[in-house]
Amino acid sequence: MKLKDLYSFLKKDLQQIEDQLVQSVRSDQTLIHTAGVELLKAGGKRIRPVFVLLSAQFGTYNIQQIKKPAAALELIHMASLVHDDVVDDADMRRGRETVKAKYDNKIAMYTGDFIFASALKLMSEINIPRAHQILAQGMKEMCLGEIEQINEQYDTDQNVRKYFKRIKRKTALLIALSCQLGAITSKVDVSLQKKLYDFGFCVGMAFQITDDILDFTASEKQLGKPAGSDLKQGNLTLPVLYTMRQYPEFKEKLNVYYETNDPDLLAELLKDIKRLGGIEYATEISDKYLKRAKLAAASLPETDARDSLLKVADFIAGRKF
Amino acid sequence: MKLKDLYSFLKKDLQQIEDQLVQSVRSDQTLIHTAGVELLKAGGKRIRPVFVLLSAQFGTYNIQQIKKPAAALELIHMASLVHDDVVDDADMRRGRETVKAKYDNKIAMYTGDFIFASALKLMSEINIPRAHQILAQGMKEMCLGEIEQINEQYDTDQNVRKYFKRIKRKTALLIALSCQLGAITSKVDVSLQKKLYDFGFCVGMAFQITDDILDFTASEKQLGKPAGSDLKQGNLTLPVLYTMRQYPEFKEKLNVYYETNDPDLLAELLKDIKRLGGIEYATEISDKYLKRAKLAAASLPETDARDSLLKVADFIAGRKF
Repeated sequence: MKLKDLYSFLKKDLQQIEDQLVQSVRSDQTLIHTAGVELLKAGGKRIRPVFVLLSAQFGTYNIQQIKKPAAALELIHMASLVHDDVVDDADMRRGRETVKAKYDNKIAMYTGDFIFASALKLMSEINIPRAHQILAQGMKEMCLGEIEQINEQYDTDQNVRKYFKRIKRKTALLIALSCQLGAITSKVDVSLQKKLYDFGFCVGMAFQITDDILDFTASEKQLGKPAGSDLKQGNLTLPVLYTMRQYPEFKEKLNVYYETNDPDLLAELLKDIKRLGGIEYATEISDKYLKRAKLAAASLPETDARDSLLKVADFIAGRKF
Repeated sequence: MKLKDLYSFLKKDLQQIEDQLVQSVRSDQTLIHTAGVELLKAGGKRIRPVFVLLSAQFGTYNIQQIKKPAAALELIHMASLVHDDVVDDADMRRGRETVKAKYDNKIAMYTGDFIFASALKLMSEINIPRAHQILAQGMKEMCLGEIEQINEQYDTDQNVRKYFKRIKRKTALLIALSCQLGAITSKVDVSLQKKLYDFGFCVGMAFQITDDILDFTASEKQLGKPAGSDLKQGNLTLPVLYTMRQYPEFKEKLNVYYETNDPDLLAELLKDIKRLGGIEYATEISDKYLKRAKLAAASLPETDARDSLLKVADFIAGRKF
């Protein structure tokens, strides 16, 4: 079963979104045009547009309208990846060279800015001021999440609460907004808008926690980078935070690792996390969010879209890599 | 005579814009909050808000409304400076440490993104879809201008036309939009909107050409960096492009300089530009734009705002550093 089989009735509409994406990054400036088209070709799951379209199905669905926020949310996601690659100094993403690696940091910075602006342009074409306000506020929060992540790197004194706040801003919010903006644009009943937002938020949380678990459990081949990269780079995720809280000697060892960078110690820490229940704990929390997401979706009207939302939630929170 | 004496009747309103700016960069994240407040304290001429307010005077002027686009345009300008400092690897701006230098590239990247998003949030509070569309398109163009500048660096085969396209996107457009969005927000008559846009555009062109001239003629103390920095960094501005066009042997010498980086050759080139009329030519072009700007302003209704626009145009195009 592939992800796209879960919403096959959207196939034609998703193609329209691809066309819209290409049109949005079009420019008379060859370099930025090429960089944009390459980013689009590199793919990605287009999960945000899917949530926009599925949520819009609960209202007056008009693909000519709804494709605009759907493409805008994907563009914002793309732009943030381009900027992340600049600050992470990343050369590869999704098995391809990053804009930063292929061109340089300057081009990547302004390509990111250009794609952000393209997203806003597209949003400005739907005449719903509240949608703009929600999106702009969401973008502010996303930036704060990124800065928190940098700020809290290597901070072994942080608690689990900080992690949740961070992944909310970094990931869950944009998925929640995808559902909300899809609903607002197609004038979904206000009571359902709230449910769709909650659904997106919980799926987003489960998605990120799963991502953070896979960084420990998936193979290097599956991840496209060595397992344990988050820990190595000082990104303290739920499995680590749990293990630190339960086992002070683990925290001690982690502090020593960050001082010495000893690779043997890293290998030991990675084993500890698995042995001491960090993965199980994080999986439990992810399952709770998934359950909450499905509860929210279950209360929606019984339609194909609702079925798809439920299946997509299971798929992305339950994926093995 | 100081710049702010040219629009003293706006003093109270400009204070409201300062307050709005502080409020817009407020956040629960100490680091980004501090960086934002420091950027605001570092000052700047606030020339974009001034143009917004002055243009708004020709319609139904309401400071509670107009302060939003005014602050938004300043925020966009600020954000672009923060991103420029990342890509230029600049440690000082306006005599202070840059965000990039004080924190690091990552923080500066997301601080820039945060300020961009804050600008959009503010714009989203005025309920005029056309204003959003104009601003979003303007931001796309600005990014293209930045990329063109990078792309055309050290390219001694470029012509004057490329320079004009570049500075239009890089500088003149945002000033033109300041005038236009001020006018749109306060519902200025459409025929006047066009004049205000033209005024802003021509002032912006004169402003940037003057800036590019001063890079050759002002002292290191006035500039806060060595004279001729643009030429050294491969930014080919009007005085250089003119001299290259007129004197093939100058172009030859410039190519040799970019291959050798010989400082004696740079000193010679800087002298050549002055001796061969590059400064005079650029000054002539700047004066033409200034004249066009004043012609546009002269056709506006006779008000204090019109007087101020005329004086501000003279001031910023005629400044000696």
